Amino acid sequence: MRAVDIIANKRDGKALSQAEINFFIKGYTSGEIADYQAAAWAMAVLLQGMTPEETTYLTLAMAESGDTLDLSGVVDIAVDKHSSGGVGDKTSIAVVPMVRACGLPVGKMSGRGLGFSGGTLDKLESVPGFRTDLSKDEFLEQLGTLGMVLTGQSLDLAPADGKLYALRDVTATVQSIPLIASSIMSKKIAAGAQAIVLDVKTGNGAFMQTLDEARELAKLMVSIGELSGRDVAAILSDMNQPLGMAVGNALEMKEAIFTLQGEGPDDFHEHCLEIASQMLVLGKRAKTKTEARKMAEDAITSGKGLEYLKKLIAAQGGDVSYIEHPEKLPEAPIKHVIEAKESGFVSEVHARTVGETAVVLGAGRTKKGEEIDLAVGIMVHVKVGDQVEAGQPLFVIHAHDEVSMEEAKASLRDAVSIVPQKVDALPLFYGLVD
Amino acid sequence: MRAVDIIANKRDGKALSQAEINFFIKGYTSGEIADYQAAAWAMAVLLQGMTPEETTYLTLAMAESGDTLDLSGVVDIAVDKHSSGGVGDKTSIAVVPMVRACGLPVGKMSGRGLGFSGGTLDKLESVPGFRTDLSKDEFLEQLGTLGMVLTGQSLDLAPADGKLYALRDVTATVQSIPLIASSIMSKKIAAGAQAIVLDVKTGNGAFMQTLDEARELAKLMVSIGELSGRDVAAILSDMNQPLGMAVGNALEMKEAIFTLQGEGPDDFHEHCLEIASQMLVLGKRAKTKTEARKMAEDAITSGKGLEYLKKLIAAQGGDVSYIEHPEKLPEAPIKHVIEAKESGFVSEVHARTVGETAVVLGAGRTKKGEEIDLAVGIMVHVKVGDQVEAGQPLFVIHAHDEVSMEEAKASLRDAVSIVPQKVDALPLFYGLVD
Repeated sequence: MRAVDIIANKRDGKALSQAEINFFIKGYTSGEIADYQAAAWAMAVLLQGMTPEETTYLTLAMAESGDTLDLSGVVDIAVDKHSSGGVGDKTSIAVVPMVRACGLPVGKMSGRGLGFSGGTLDKLESVPGFRTDLSKDEFLEQLGTLGMVLTGQSLDLAPADGKLYALRDVTATVQSIPLIASSIMSKKIAAGAQAIVLDVKTGNGAFMQTLDEARELAKLMVSIGELSGRDVAAILSDMNQPLGMAVGNALEMKEAIFTLQGEGPDDFHEHCLEIASQMLVLGKRAKTKTEARKMAEDAITSGKGLEYLKKLIAAQGGDVSYIEHPEKLPEAPIKHVIEAKESGFVSEVHARTVGETAVVLGAGRTKKGEEIDLAVGIMVHVKVGDQVEAGQPLFVIHAHDEVSMEEAKASLRDAVSIVPQKVDALPLFYGLVD
Repeated sequence: MRAVDIIANKRDGKALSQAEINFFIKGYTSGEIADYQAAAWAMAVLLQGMTPEETTYLTLAMAESGDTLDLSGVVDIAVDKHSSGGVGDKTSIAVVPMVRACGLPVGKMSGRGLGFSGGTLDKLESVPGFRTDLSKDEFLEQLGTLGMVLTGQSLDLAPADGKLYALRDVTATVQSIPLIASSIMSKKIAAGAQAIVLDVKTGNGAFMQTLDEARELAKLMVSIGELSGRDVAAILSDMNQPLGMAVGNALEMKEAIFTLQGEGPDDFHEHCLEIASQMLVLGKRAKTKTEARKMAEDAITSGKGLEYLKKLIAAQGGDVSYIEHPEKLPEAPIKHVIEAKESGFVSEVHARTVGETAVVLGAGRTKKGEEIDLAVGIMVHVKVGDQVEAGQPLFVIHAHDEVSMEEAKASLRDAVSIVPQKVDALPLFYGLVD
């Protein structure tokens, strides 16, 4: 077998065999197949596509390229949850304790923010002492004793994916649905997931800009699940406007706490119930969606979800008093309210612009490894469809200094549109693929 | 400007600007743009295509990436000739002295054989002493004094093309018509050509397997000529069966000599007259094709062409007695005649199989730099359309030893097909693009 022939087959639109894909990924991981060959292959994949079978072979080959976790000795079923990323998405922080409160263990590895999209680890680190660098042994130990982990990817999971992703980033081959799907699924499978709830976001604040693309990605990931023997459900959710009100690390941490206290924004509360319900069904803690939803609601109203968040924070070295007194979380020194200039109906709250403004303030990164400011961010006070009066607050900007405040004000100038006629609210969800 | 954006534009099917192509080729030549980026770009070019304008920008950028020759101080017009490669193609050896005899100077750089396709330099080197490594100064000096040079590419001509070609070879991006066209034309333009006659071959023994592909390549190269201010004519010629009778280096050298003596095989004789005539017209030595053809015929019948071949051999250090006595050229120790097993009409003499058999015998290379045997090869005694009797010779194999002889016999087993019904001869040419 030769790499050049495998590239030629994909160039000519042929479906690659499992043996060809394994050969290519093994060779690429070991360095026998060069970056330039992988780059030509990735461009051929992007332009010629891949069948669900090929994408599954690729997913499994990448999942098997490094360390793998086997959670079957620790939990009866390993359910994972993945969001395709967006603005204001602090779902994991609320949902992991919620489903744990319902008896479903979750051992989850999360990521950091990059560009306009935030990351769960950064948000959690606004609680002093909280560790996101658990070792494999610590991960398994805590999952076994507490039934819940939320940490970073400290293991060498799916290194082929890491290597290929870095290459795709500089060769204009990121935007390939089979490559995106296999990238996500390979890490989840390497991390031991037997069932996965995918939150595939669509809109200007998501990586999938259109619903068609998001649906295609969701369908492909569900197919990969079927073909690889994992139970996968994908929820298509809106990311044209920010999720919840808070955008920024400590602000989002607070909002997750409030939500577990039953006082979260309606859209985020509903989002958490939906994701948690799907997880409880896939994890066989509920027979029906209705039953699962009732359990998830109870986890909030009973306060058990909040209790489990405290346990999670404590188990990973965080200061629980910050959960009990969220006002202790980092707070920005200056705030500024942006008011509506006119009365009418909100027709747009541009998620991507809000996300980019958070980066301007210092809440996010333009490249990996950059320092961030946990305190800064934006509180979003309106949703599409809301009726507003001139002078009513649209945003409250939390900034570190006047310079970034001015930049943020300029950046947010056109983020909200107000029109005279009534506007329908945006849906939270566009459907379920399972 | 960023390489990744240029790749993305081509990926999305956009036409690249001259500034983008210059940036990319300059960066790739200097090493600032990595192989993996060029590989992704080449695959995008292969699958999305390029306009004639883009291909011209690419040709000129590659032509300007290294040394360039300016022949205007040496000759009044620099006419070059290029063959896309095939089996039994010894045209340059006969045609360069022919057109020189007609008063047209030619300074030509040729290549070596690779795979089933032979190379002019190897054939010339069957004459002891003949040098194919002239320096730039030697090249210009000989072109000025003798009006004729036939040597290897000793200069650093179009290094971007050399680098890109080596990359394309290992990334399955060779078979892109814009990349093939720009590769050929960039070297010709860097070598100072103001007018170029292209011999674009089509058939199983050519790189362009179908006439449609060959015509597309020919048209694109003629367009590059128009857009870059060079006069280009492309002849579409057949390469389904070998050209002439001789395949193998010394055998082909002999056939070129015989042809200049007026005793070449009909098809090769005609091929040389056609190429020479086009060169004489482009080089303004004849007003019409008819006049040019008469001049070319005279160069053979008068013996002037042969005289100029001797001068060329002498000027580059070769032993002229080998031209006067071609029987002195290297001869293989064993020969074997393959006879027709049945009577009928020849419907196929498979060029590629004959070329691959020559490699089996040691006349060609499977990879660059391999030693070859100048004496061995195959004499082809039939053409498609010929009527043959059982027992009549089809091939004479010239081998170095019994082992390679047996391999060659096996390789040639199905090279010729004989059918009972009459078969039309194959055309020599499929048209002219100018």
